[in-house]
Amino acid sequence: MSQELPRGFEYAGVRCGIKRTGKDDFAMIVARDGAVAAGVYTQNLVFAAPVDWDRRHTPSADVRVVAINSGNANACTGQRGLDDAYAMARLAADTIGARPEQCLIMSTGIIGEFLPIDRIAEGTRLAAMQLGSAQENFLAAARAIMTTDSFPKHVQRSFTVGEQEISIAGMAKGAGMIGPRMATMLAVITSDARLTPADAQDALLSAVELSFNCISVEGHMSTNDTVLLLASGQAGGEPMTGRRLAEFTECLADTCAQLAKMIPNDGEGATHLVEIDVRGTASNEDARRIAKTIAESALVKTAICGADPNWGRIVSAAGYAGPKFDPQQVHLLLNGFRLYERGVPLRFDAAAVSESMKSQRDTRIELHVGDGPGHCRFWTSDLTHEYIRINADYHT
Amino acid sequence: MSQELPRGFEYAGVRCGIKRTGKDDFAMIVARDGAVAAGVYTQNLVFAAPVDWDRRHTPSADVRVVAINSGNANACTGQRGLDDAYAMARLAADTIGARPEQCLIMSTGIIGEFLPIDRIAEGTRLAAMQLGSAQENFLAAARAIMTTDSFPKHVQRSFTVGEQEISIAGMAKGAGMIGPRMATMLAVITSDARLTPADAQDALLSAVELSFNCISVEGHMSTNDTVLLLASGQAGGEPMTGRRLAEFTECLADTCAQLAKMIPNDGEGATHLVEIDVRGTASNEDARRIAKTIAESALVKTAICGADPNWGRIVSAAGYAGPKFDPQQVHLLLNGFRLYERGVPLRFDAAAVSESMKSQRDTRIELHVGDGPGHCRFWTSDLTHEYIRINADYHT
Repeated sequence: MSQELPRGFEYAGVRCGIKRTGKDDFAMIVARDGAVAAGVYTQNLVFAAPVDWDRRHTPSADVRVVAINSGNANACTGQRGLDDAYAMARLAADTIGARPEQCLIMSTGIIGEFLPIDRIAEGTRLAAMQLGSAQENFLAAARAIMTTDSFPKHVQRSFTVGEQEISIAGMAKGAGMIGPRMATMLAVITSDARLTPADAQDALLSAVELSFNCISVEGHMSTNDTVLLLASGQAGGEPMTGRRLAEFTECLADTCAQLAKMIPNDGEGATHLVEIDVRGTASNEDARRIAKTIAESALVKTAICGADPNWGRIVSAAGYAGPKFDPQQVHLLLNGFRLYERGVPLRFDAAAVSESMKSQRDTRIELHVGDGPGHCRFWTSDLTHEYIRINADYHT
Repeated sequence: MSQELPRGFEYAGVRCGIKRTGKDDFAMIVARDGAVAAGVYTQNLVFAAPVDWDRRHTPSADVRVVAINSGNANACTGQRGLDDAYAMARLAADTIGARPEQCLIMSTGIIGEFLPIDRIAEGTRLAAMQLGSAQENFLAAARAIMTTDSFPKHVQRSFTVGEQEISIAGMAKGAGMIGPRMATMLAVITSDARLTPADAQDALLSAVELSFNCISVEGHMSTNDTVLLLASGQAGGEPMTGRRLAEFTECLADTCAQLAKMIPNDGEGATHLVEIDVRGTASNEDARRIAKTIAESALVKTAICGADPNWGRIVSAAGYAGPKFDPQQVHLLLNGFRLYERGVPLRFDAAAVSESMKSQRDTRIELHVGDGPGHCRFWTSDLTHEYIRINADYHT
């Protein structure tokens, strides 16, 4: 974390009184000289008003501000929700003399309640006074977007692309209602790379495919999932093309994966971060579908919580995922122990496997289903008593 | 339950020592004069050896025995599993002088362990001595097929079809790993109706579509799901056709639905039986996909466990189910209370709704998503601490 933050951005996180807990609940990210912006959003038919707004304003050649509130999702709120989203964009843009169309917005929290616009107005006012480009400002923003998260999620990386030093920083939030198909709850990636809007959009899409699209807590796709990329271009030079653009995209994917994994690692009630590595399918998408089905089986998740090497639950989940494979070709490893090979159970030391699951937070499942080129790494959390406590006792 | 059992069947349930708990673990159902038989099976690519055997021997004009063991699923056991399945069919058939091909088999329990054939041999020997057509024999069989079930699941109905009295009886087992696409864990339906094998198969398929295909506990599709229909024809007359066959199919569907609902009602750790009624889709299959997605959302299930009218979780689950609909057309009722109408939240008495959820085991969700003709009723259980205890602490 010793790397520099990308040039061209200021951050703030403040408390404006949306959350009943009194915790910080409003963040702003400002690019005074403008940034190219790209966005990837939930595929849920029931999508929130801020998603509607951002979709219509990305990709963009000139975004100046991102405003984010936590504690209220502004979802399932009809026309009034759309009006409130516009008001939020206008309020945030006003603080730096920008136009509403230059402001992207994000909301997260309770579904089906109207956004308290007076609180948002207070949030923009306070945030505008706190803006800064230091590490502490960045962290304050990352903290203000949290809901049930137990820690703020952020990452900073510097890369050499061609002969140029560029930086990428990201913040994300999410611990529950995590089952993204195109993005996850909320994440903002900033970079000082110079990109065209179309290339920024393509780079973000391919990075998300290998990161935020490969995580899950309980598989419930949110109404508000949004990942934004803002590129200030202040690293200088011409917009990236060709090999440099490909290299940048790889750095972006790597950064996104590092950030995305933090979400299931902080999954509600989680005691394990589970990495599921599926290989040998016809396509990467087939591998992703199998990995996601394993990741979302309550039986697999509870077995991991209980440190039980109950591999039949893993293999049977793969079998109903959809993609075709030959069960006689299946190999399974759990934390490096071989449990199942060519459709036949192997003798193994169950106590040793269980001990390996008990003694470490990271659990690794490797499933080979054939000799195709398809591959996916997917991350999820286990399912514990604490998940039930959080979600059965959290009242609307 | 005062109805007669169908003519032409004998039942037995015994203990042969497969289960470590010492509970009954072997059942036989015998049709000495033969029965027409139909079967519907799991769509899991990873299917158990007994499913392989039964698929190859249904529909059939002459089945004499069904043998069922609990405690071991004979799944993921390779060629040896197939050999054991054949041995099980041969052993059971031998007891009544039938051929192995006249015996259907079912197994349920732990995945990935070889079937103890000496125990199965003992089971067939004991069961052959206990066979009888009385109520107590029927109940003994229903009890012997249980695994984590807390009560035996069975139903008996008599109907007048045309001018003929016919009886249908069914037994089923299942409380976890319930997410069937073509059938559920294990169920056997007997009837004295006279049917051709092809009509028996069609009738079972359409009955299953409205019953066992509309239930779920955690959505994990088993390797062993099987529903069998045996029709002895001892009600007499010609094989049913036309209107009488249609009437019979309706009676069968009704009986299957009554039996199927018992499974989520006994879902592992369940404190609520949830009925999800989705209407207004383009097709029944669209309604089923939406209902199933709501039923399998851990967030919806924990909200019901906590008696929390958190309707945003229900509407957002519908939104990622796949079928297209207009969110502005959506209406939602929970236990009869209107919570959401035409895409806008309504004011409601949250305490009263919560109290209605707390005070009764049955919870009813009604979701209207448009004005199409599609419709589905789906049943599921809630997700509780006890589910986690059962599945995290149950060790292989």
